[in-house]
Amino acid sequence: VFDVVRKSTVPLGDQLVERVSGLIESGRLPEGSRLPSVRQLARRAGVSVYTVTSAFERLSAKGLIDARPGAGYFVAPTSNRLALSRIELAPLASSDPVLGFARNAIEQDAISVPAGSGFLPPSWLADAVPSSIFSKVGRAGVLTESAPVQGEAILRELLAERLRMAGLPVAARSVVVTFGASHAFDLIARTLLKANDSVMVDDPGYFVLPIQLRSHGVHPVPVKRAAEGVDLESLESAARLHRPRMFFTQTVLHNPTGTSATAANCHGILKLAEKYNFLVVEDHVYSDLAPRPAVFLAQIDELKRVLYVGSFTKVLGPGMRIGFIAAPEALVPQLVDSKILSVLSGSALDEFVLRELLASGKYRKHTERVRDRLAKSRAAATNALHRAGMIIEQTAADGIFLWCRLPEGVDSERLSADARAAGILLAKGAMFSISGLSTAYLRINVAYGSDPLLTQFLGARCAAAA
Amino acid sequence: VFDVVRKSTVPLGDQLVERVSGLIESGRLPEGSRLPSVRQLARRAGVSVYTVTSAFERLSAKGLIDARPGAGYFVAPTSNRLALSRIELAPLASSDPVLGFARNAIEQDAISVPAGSGFLPPSWLADAVPSSIFSKVGRAGVLTESAPVQGEAILRELLAERLRMAGLPVAARSVVVTFGASHAFDLIARTLLKANDSVMVDDPGYFVLPIQLRSHGVHPVPVKRAAEGVDLESLESAARLHRPRMFFTQTVLHNPTGTSATAANCHGILKLAEKYNFLVVEDHVYSDLAPRPAVFLAQIDELKRVLYVGSFTKVLGPGMRIGFIAAPEALVPQLVDSKILSVLSGSALDEFVLRELLASGKYRKHTERVRDRLAKSRAAATNALHRAGMIIEQTAADGIFLWCRLPEGVDSERLSADARAAGILLAKGAMFSISGLSTAYLRINVAYGSDPLLTQFLGARCAAAA
Repeated sequence: VFDVVRKSTVPLGDQLVERVSGLIESGRLPEGSRLPSVRQLARRAGVSVYTVTSAFERLSAKGLIDARPGAGYFVAPTSNRLALSRIELAPLASSDPVLGFARNAIEQDAISVPAGSGFLPPSWLADAVPSSIFSKVGRAGVLTESAPVQGEAILRELLAERLRMAGLPVAARSVVVTFGASHAFDLIARTLLKANDSVMVDDPGYFVLPIQLRSHGVHPVPVKRAAEGVDLESLESAARLHRPRMFFTQTVLHNPTGTSATAANCHGILKLAEKYNFLVVEDHVYSDLAPRPAVFLAQIDELKRVLYVGSFTKVLGPGMRIGFIAAPEALVPQLVDSKILSVLSGSALDEFVLRELLASGKYRKHTERVRDRLAKSRAAATNALHRAGMIIEQTAADGIFLWCRLPEGVDSERLSADARAAGILLAKGAMFSISGLSTAYLRINVAYGSDPLLTQFLGARCAAAA
Repeated sequence: VFDVVRKSTVPLGDQLVERVSGLIESGRLPEGSRLPSVRQLARRAGVSVYTVTSAFERLSAKGLIDARPGAGYFVAPTSNRLALSRIELAPLASSDPVLGFARNAIEQDAISVPAGSGFLPPSWLADAVPSSIFSKVGRAGVLTESAPVQGEAILRELLAERLRMAGLPVAARSVVVTFGASHAFDLIARTLLKANDSVMVDDPGYFVLPIQLRSHGVHPVPVKRAAEGVDLESLESAARLHRPRMFFTQTVLHNPTGTSATAANCHGILKLAEKYNFLVVEDHVYSDLAPRPAVFLAQIDELKRVLYVGSFTKVLGPGMRIGFIAAPEALVPQLVDSKILSVLSGSALDEFVLRELLASGKYRKHTERVRDRLAKSRAAATNALHRAGMIIEQTAADGIFLWCRLPEGVDSERLSADARAAGILLAKGAMFSISGLSTAYLRINVAYGSDPLLTQFLGARCAAAA
């Protein structure tokens, strides 16, 4: 009864949702009955585990089934379903296509294989935060008081301590907690930039950043990214020509190429920053996924000209909306004021959970597990995608991304539109480049890179173009 | 050993922190020993319960004592203290005095009587969220996936349902979840306003709003607030003169005066909005504290010209950073895009907790308890402050604020500076007015309005001026 049609144009996940909804609504699966386990169903229907997981989550959001931890999924009481049938689940579409992609990547609605996502799969994260921490939240009365605007004091100290251990001498008073790295970038832009400023960004680079900058009237200027880090000639010529106020760059496990800047490259960036008098924002959101510590800009500069941005969404999951800025001390009061103006204060709950997790030492263990798993997935994905006909840049060795070139004759626009219709989210290279580079590339999340649905789809397209 | 000196210039809370720190550091209170209960200590030292609570929290933040739920406070292990001694607890100061006040009100650092706060006391909120909800968070794997950008679907439906019950026909797809009302105002400003737009605001009114607007290059224009709502003549003349794009107003339990707009006043506002073609942002953050439902702008207008802003920080505590916008449907996609640009997405944790709380029916019960308690506190505070010499505007009957006039000869600037030195946070009227009105007023939170420390302080000042 749970069969799906593999060659249908309807994505497998959608088929599963429809099938189970039908069984429940027709009464063939009565209230309270137990559904097969995710693994059983995946095996039986011949689909992947996360296709089933995501189908179950959509059924659960519709109020049709309930998860009972440890016991499995059960058909929800009819009363529940009636109350929830009024929900229009579909949120309204974004007005910007790139932000629309960001939403797809975050929400993964009707997506079986989120190969274009920048986040770890939910199944890798289930054990990241011990449930004892959540029980503690209730006892501690966390919601009754606001988190301090700059961030909970002990959390800031723990963040500073991690930076000190990584070789950056910094005090808790230089740390400002934010709702993730995006919020950090936005606070930096609204605090330190004004309309018509020019700001340099990695090209290719994080795709939301240029839109954030433009929303503040700031002009993003592309700087070429190379295997060893930033292309210093490109940086110098952009600096000379545009006299930018700032350079946003990602030194470690760069998004989307996966490369890391060398120590010499960091030194070169900072020399140019001094020569042309610009500030540097170092985006380090993937650094905890790097197996070896790398030299980084803030470490060399010691927070004189560099603002360091970190985040926990990449390692703990996108539900954990905490990032932070470690800034030159003189800039902290203005950054905190900008935080008041944007959100008043942070989430006491999220800050408490992260504080307890960091203090417990379990974050470190989780990170190690994730890194091991990424290394294995990376090897498997590299093989599978290579067999499918993709050309994989060998310049990056670690992290979550493979930067894959499409063979000639494959149009990335059409490819990603067709993939989307088949339940596969692809991140096309053009999205990461404001200069129009990278159109022949895809950024593929290694956790999904060997999924048969993805590799079969890409394989067929590459074969057809050959 | 816990004695404090009542006539000292050192605030009682500071004395207590110092006393207990000394006892711990000298070894007279050894590791693991139990401190007296908050009530015992308050009685013994002759201070209020929240002076003790706040002192204990500061000691706890310093790593000197630990709260063991159900059992009380204990001296923390020495190992803990060593690890935490490096913390610089003091965050850096704000660069703006009004934002500095906002931080004081949020953080309540070294404040015994936060009479100027706009939040309920933590002790009123401890039971608001049943601990079973927090345990559920851990089991549900909430952190492994992002909240949808627009807000968790069932939460949006529950919010829409509450609005429908209040008489505003609205669907979940018109609701955008935000990090509190401040975030909502900021999203509205960055989405719908541009530099040099004029925007009308209540005068007196919510004090952070004009600074938020100015940070977007928008000019706030004051509109006089009257007992029955907005002064319609003032509104019309501002609309005629400035051709504003928008009017931000608080119809129910207005901050700071506590008044609510009549139905006729709402009607008058909307007629002028149509005549002069401006949008209205209705700030309804205190509406759940009103004992009787009131007619409101969004209800009459049905979200054509009105954006409705709600929040849970006022009823659940400032730690619960969730608010929302119910907007005309055509504006939702742009508001959602602005949310991506400001924070990427919301807190999955906070949204889960609020969803479960609203679905459980316990929010309603908590709200009723809070309203009862506010009514009693309001009566007591009115009496106590009247006896102290304050002149209390009788136009408001409900909610959290008393709008108190100082007798002639009392300078509110000096009064609030001296109060701060004595551990009392006062919200002076001038802060709420961009036109320079209200300098002779204080906004007093009824929950703290009959605190002897406050009434004695004010009584002495009023007597000296008479």
